[in-house]
Formats: sequence, structure tokens, C-alpha cells
Amino acid sequence: MDPFDLPDLDPVPRLLLGPGPSPVHPRVMRAMAAPVVGHLDPQFLQLLDETRALLQFVFQTRNELTLTVSGTGTAGMEAALANLIEPGDAVLVGVNGYFGGRVADMAVRYGAEVRTLERPWGEVFDPAEFETALRQRPARVVVLIHAETSTGALQPGLADIARIVHEHGGLLVLDCVTSLGGLPVEVDAWGIDIAYSGTQKCLACPPGLAPVTVSTRARQAIQRRKTKTANWYLDLSAIERYWGPEHVYHHTAPISLHYGLREGLRLIVGEGLEARFARHRANAERLWAGLEAMGLALHVPVAHRLPSLTTVRVPVGVDEAAVRRRLLNDYHIEVGAGLGALKGQVWRIGLMGYGSQRQNVTLLLSALAEVLGR
Amino acid sequence: MDPFDLPDLDPVPRLLLGPGPSPVHPRVMRAMAAPVVGHLDPQFLQLLDETRALLQFVFQTRNELTLTVSGTGTAGMEAALANLIEPGDAVLVGVNGYFGGRVADMAVRYGAEVRTLERPWGEVFDPAEFETALRQRPARVVVLIHAETSTGALQPGLADIARIVHEHGGLLVLDCVTSLGGLPVEVDAWGIDIAYSGTQKCLACPPGLAPVTVSTRARQAIQRRKTKTANWYLDLSAIERYWGPEHVYHHTAPISLHYGLREGLRLIVGEGLEARFARHRANAERLWAGLEAMGLALHVPVAHRLPSLTTVRVPVGVDEAAVRRRLLNDYHIEVGAGLGALKGQVWRIGLMGYGSQRQNVTLLLSALAEVLGR
Repeated sequence: MDPFDLPDLDPVPRLLLGPGPSPVHPRVMRAMAAPVVGHLDPQFLQLLDETRALLQFVFQTRNELTLTVSGTGTAGMEAALANLIEPGDAVLVGVNGYFGGRVADMAVRYGAEVRTLERPWGEVFDPAEFETALRQRPARVVVLIHAETSTGALQPGLADIARIVHEHGGLLVLDCVTSLGGLPVEVDAWGIDIAYSGTQKCLACPPGLAPVTVSTRARQAIQRRKTKTANWYLDLSAIERYWGPEHVYHHTAPISLHYGLREGLRLIVGEGLEARFARHRANAERLWAGLEAMGLALHVPVAHRLPSLTTVRVPVGVDEAAVRRRLLNDYHIEVGAGLGALKGQVWRIGLMGYGSQRQNVTLLLSALAEVLGR
Repeated sequence: MDPFDLPDLDPVPRLLLGPGPSPVHPRVMRAMAAPVVGHLDPQFLQLLDETRALLQFVFQTRNELTLTVSGTGTAGMEAALANLIEPGDAVLVGVNGYFGGRVADMAVRYGAEVRTLERPWGEVFDPAEFETALRQRPARVVVLIHAETSTGALQPGLADIARIVHEHGGLLVLDCVTSLGGLPVEVDAWGIDIAYSGTQKCLACPPGLAPVTVSTRARQAIQRRKTKTANWYLDLSAIERYWGPEHVYHHTAPISLHYGLREGLRLIVGEGLEARFARHRANAERLWAGLEAMGLALHVPVAHRLPSLTTVRVPVGVDEAAVRRRLLNDYHIEVGAGLGALKGQVWRIGLMGYGSQRQNVTLLLSALAEVLGR
């Protein structure tokens, strides 16, 4: 690799129908081209206030502590855990896919005593399982994945689970990376204590920012910490002072990504939550019907199937990587491979944000039919 | 704040002559507008290889472990500390400004036994001080700020300091946030073990990525850790597996920011390191001469004054915030306030990357003369 002889950047455009990043809306691209101003410029501080209000709407919350951390969705996950957990804390994690496993690994690094509730990949939890588990042994923090990007399963019953967690004195953290902006996330109505997401899924923005919202209960828990948060960059108490009226410098915000996020959120406000969720649902149903008509099996039962991310079983005898390669090279369509326990067994098809459009479903189904010869 | 009634984003452009972000080069803006592809797309994996080669050139290193972490410069700092430090490790930090203090606070959170070497803000360290300190008590990790953005001082003698640190069995971490791309940073020749930077200073990119390079010695130290790195998102061993030939998924890279960084680095290759450093130096000298001709005093003696960031003493009787406000509102020029111990005492003027241009110096000096009535 000769750094003195590199051509202009000129990537072949792809139709991003994998597990994310998803297609970026043109209005978001345009917003990101606005001139970069300073992170303490009054214009940018105004944008932070606007972003908070927009995020409160999309998260359906009145939480004052609603902001972004300056990293991808994983940084949002780590912000939630790092700020809540002190060494020795009992943490209960629902693991029914790759990202639940990531939470468990991460929580251990913050000194938590981690227990897991496990389910096969693609299944979901019954609220009663949390009642049983917490009665046996309470947990200070319970973490669940709302939309498991690795399996395509949607966890139901969150209001019930939150009630159970609270009755046992715990806090409920919800991973909304592949749900926020594409299907209902009702932080206040459900009683979620910390919810986080990423910008590159149903929010139609490039990756790089993680929205986070924190309930009053969780905020007080953070304020009562005996030890400093064991992560400087993601310390929500410090980031809150930057977003708050004092605007105390913490780190330089990624200005251009903030421009994009504001526009991505404004697009949601303009479309309306109900219309947006209905669009995601309708296009997902078209996809499911088309795949099944082609004789393909879907990994997750329809009752808890995620509209934003569909896992398709790879038919016996089909080279799954070759199919993805042909879609990418001949049609410029990206779909995802299976991850972890589902590696080699499924394809992952995302219809997220700006990507959830009828013509994308039609094109993907037709291209897949051609590649599979069906 | 009504999220249903927000106007189009339309920030007034600013001439960014503060401590960063600095003006983004138009070619970087153009590169960032390229279509977002997936983080596992062969086109993007190729870009990672290119970025590594470009960063090796700019860092002047052959370190194989040269990459970015997906956050701002502070995330680069935290990546260096989190990966090297295990609980109980002795860490020695040179503190002669705000960012040295930040390092010390951060290292404590990773369980380090932190000692500081202190100097008044604006001064620099003599290599002999490290010899004395390490003879008294060795340290596993020594951290220094190459270019203190809070004071405008440039730390000299790094090859000597690195030799001393190594003789005492330690590793040297160097913060190059405000030096990389604007003045010599010679990682291999000096013997630096981990150097990190940010994209929004002398690299002429928006904030959001932190270049990091790790010596073989430091890489082995990380591989020999007894405990897992106490930070999941910034775990260099895992990020290395994503950048390496296996390309194991870790987190979704901020694609658009990578497009920009590649172009920002290519601009450096095109200009040439020597020419670029000479440009930063010449414009800084023009600025210094002009400020002194106006009767203003510079906070740092010329012998260790930073070309990329100049601290100007606020004259007695002048309202420092009012001057900044007038520059911002009437001239659309951003300069920085003093930070920490220098709050209210200095202005911070950055001439970084694309911002280091003769006409910017001329405009700023003239505007400042008008505002100050000199």
C-alpha cells in the first residue's frame, strides 16, 4: 500500500439492505455538508437543545437527561453500563442473540456480577422469567435487547418487564439500536430507565452518534455513585454538564454528525411516528410474503418478528456467502451474513429508515430470485 | 423548544481560529459526501488499509498497529490508557496544563496509582526531571502532552524522555492532538510507545475520529494483560481484529468521517510534511509578530511556543469575553477562551491545518486591532 499513490475516493454506491448502516437520507447528507462551527458556538449549543427536544419526541419521553454520546451504538451501550454499574453490582442480562452476549461481556469489565437469562437465538423472553429470576436473586440492573439485530427478534412485554424489575428494586436498560425510529419505543409509558440507540439504523443517518435517554430514577442512581464512572469519555454526568445550561467543555462533539442527526430526527417529526412505523411494517410484510412465496423460510415466527431486520434461513445446499457476493457485485445490494450462533445459517435483510421503501423490497426480491434461480 | 417547528439547518459560517475544531478543507467536505457503504464492504476494508498507510506516514512510523478509534481525541487518550493500564499500575503524568490533568483523572479511573510531575501552565519539562522521578520510583506508563492545547506550549526533548522512560522499564504515551499534521511527530525516531491524536486540529477534518499508533513493545504489553481491557468500545485488541485481515466485526465504523480522514491525510501527503510544517511555522510567526506589534504579550516564551496554538495574554482592563463575542458576532471569527488555570487570562488562537493561511492571520490581526482599538 503506497500512501503516495492513492486515487480519489469514489466508492460504488450500494443499496444498504443489511443490518446497518442503512441508506442515508439525502436531506441528512445535505445537512452534513453545512459549514462546521465550534462545539461552544452559540449556534451549536442551540442545536444541542433542539436535538434534545427531537430525541425526547422520538424516544417518547420527558427525560431531561436525553442526549447523545459521541460514538456508535456500542458506545451508547457502554455509556448505559459504565454509568450505572459499580464494582460488585448484580446485573441480569437477557441473552437471546449476539448483542445480549456483548452486554454481558461489557458488564463484566465494569466489575459487575453478571447473571444471564438465556434463550435460543431468535426466541424472546416471557416477562414471568424475570419475575422468577429476580425473586431467586435480585439485580441492581437488568439489560434487554429490544430488537436483536443478530436474530431479527422483537422483545415484547416491556412494560410488564419494567414493572417487575422495579418491584424488585432494579433498573431496566433497553437496547433500542435497531428499533428507535422504525417501531414503537415508548420510554416513559413502558418505564425504561436507560434506552440507547445508534444513528445508522432506523434514523437514516451515518454511524457515529448514540442517542441515550435516562430516567429520573437512573439519573439519581448515577448521582449517588460511590465511585467515579469507570469511563471518562462516556461519563454521563460530565456530558450532561456540556449539554446543560453551563455548557462545560468535556470533549469536542462530532459537529457534522450532529448536523445529520438533527435532520434525520426532523424527518421523523415530519413523517409522524405512526406513519413511519406503518411504513416499516408494510414494507417488512411485503418482504416476508415475497420471501415465503420464493420458498424461503424465515428464522423468527411472525408473532415476534422485527420489521426492521429479517433473518432468512439459507436453503440447504446454497452457498450463503456466494449469494451475498453476487448481490453486492452484480446488483450493488448489501445484505448481511449471520452472526455468532447463526453464522452461515441466515441472511440478514434490513429495511430501516430511508431504506424501508417499496421499490427496495421489489428489487431485492427480484435480484434474489435471479441469484437463487427461483 | 418545539421539535415540530424547527427551521432548516443554516449555520452562519465561522472562520475557526480557536483551539479546534479547525476549518475543514473543501476536499474533505467533498469526500464526506460520498455515498455511505457498509463497514464490511470490500471497498471500505480497502479504505482502512489505505488509512493505515497514510497514518503511518503522518505519524512517521512503521507500527503495524496504527488505526483510528471511533471517537474524538479524548477517546484516543482513553484508548491509550485503558489498554495499557491494569489496576495497581504505577503511572507518571506530566501535568503542565489542562490535558495533563485530564490524563491523570482518567488513569485513576482505570485503577492506576497516579503520580504527577507538575509545572506551571505554559512551561515545559526538562528530560532530567523524568530521570529523577523514575529513579525515585519507577512507573509502568509515562504520559506526556506534546502540544498542550490549553497553554500553547510545545514539549521538547521527546527522544531523550523516551530513552529515559525505557531505561526505567516504562512505556511512553504521547498526546499529539494539536501537533499531528502541523509540526513534526516522529513516533519511531523518538521511540514513542503510543501516540494518539484527533482529526479536528491540524488534520483539517471534522471531529469524530482519533488516530492511534502503538509500538511493538506496547502491543506486546497489551497482549500480555492479565485482565481484559476495562473498556469495551476502545479495546485495541478487538479493534485490531477488525482492521486486520480477518475483519472481525467490532462496532460500525463512522463511515463518512473515515472518508473525510482519508482525504485529509492525502492532502498532507500531497503537500509534503516539511512544507506543511514550514507553512504552520511561517503563519504562526506572522501572527506572533503582529500580536506583539499591537503591544500584546504572548503567554509562552518563543523557545517552546506551539505554532498551531498561540496563547495571548488579555491586557489589563480588557473584557476578554466581550472581545471574543465581538470577533464572533461582527467578524464571524472564533478564537478560544482560556481554560482551567488560564481562564480569563488568555485568548487561544489556533492556526491549524487548512486554517493556517496568511490571509487568516491578516484578517484576525486587523479585526483584533479594530476591536481593541489599537
